[in-house]
Amino acid sequence: MISTAKWLDHIKWNPDGLIPVIAQEADSGTVLMLAWMNRNALQQTVTSGEAVYWSRSRRCLWHKGETSGNVQKVRDIRLDCDGDVILLQVEQIGGVACHTGRHSCFFQQLQDDSWVTTEPVLKDPSAMYGL
Amino acid sequence: MISTAKWLDHIKWNPDGLIPVIAQEADSGTVLMLAWMNRNALQQTVTSGEAVYWSRSRRCLWHKGETSGNVQKVRDIRLDCDGDVILLQVEQIGGVACHTGRHSCFFQQLQDDSWVTTEPVLKDPSAMYGL
Repeated sequence: MISTAKWLDHIKWNPDGLIPVIAQEADSGTVLMLAWMNRNALQQTVTSGEAVYWSRSRRCLWHKGETSGNVQKVRDIRLDCDGDVILLQVEQIGGVACHTGRHSCFFQQLQDDSWVTTEPVLKDPSAMYGL
Repeated sequence: MISTAKWLDHIKWNPDGLIPVIAQEADSGTVLMLAWMNRNALQQTVTSGEAVYWSRSRRCLWHKGETSGNVQKVRDIRLDCDGDVILLQVEQIGGVACHTGRHSCFFQQLQDDSWVTTEPVLKDPSAMYGL
């Protein structure tokens, strides 16, 4: 069911009905990831208190951590000045946001003219996803 | 001139040739804004050491702070696991990232079912832009 809530109408959804969402770890300030939400995903995020994104590759709602257990408890939701970007403050359960098993998805650092992996793998992805 | 650098080829540009870029204040951890870069903008960012974005509304390169003086000195550039989001660590000159005169663009907080402005205006926008 599509909600008709005014606060959802206030958002400038892109032509695909999506908005980019930054997830920041509330306690550390670490930027964990960027994903996308549609109207329904944001509504479910608010209702459940856990981040629910829209998977653009799988074309379905994606309750982050539904398989790995690494859910994101949402503490705060902000909208930017243009109404087209959302910032979540989250508690990252399990300490791992990235599907590679790292704390944050931003683990490649530009050094001179190449991307260098600077963050350690904290959990084996095959164990996280039961592969 | 379009650079042929390998580190630029590593990025998954969207169909419009753009990538979303999060700017985070290095010292405070505050997420200041999200904007977009094309290949040329990112190249110029690296060369100049200051954030250069692609303005989707004006369809031109946008050296952040070129009018207001509130440039962003870039300390670190990260790429996410999927290669389609960039995270900058910046020093925000003037302490104001938002065109509304606020520190961060994320000044609207979801409270119950409405967006509430929670951050103060630090600089008069008309003074910043000489209007």
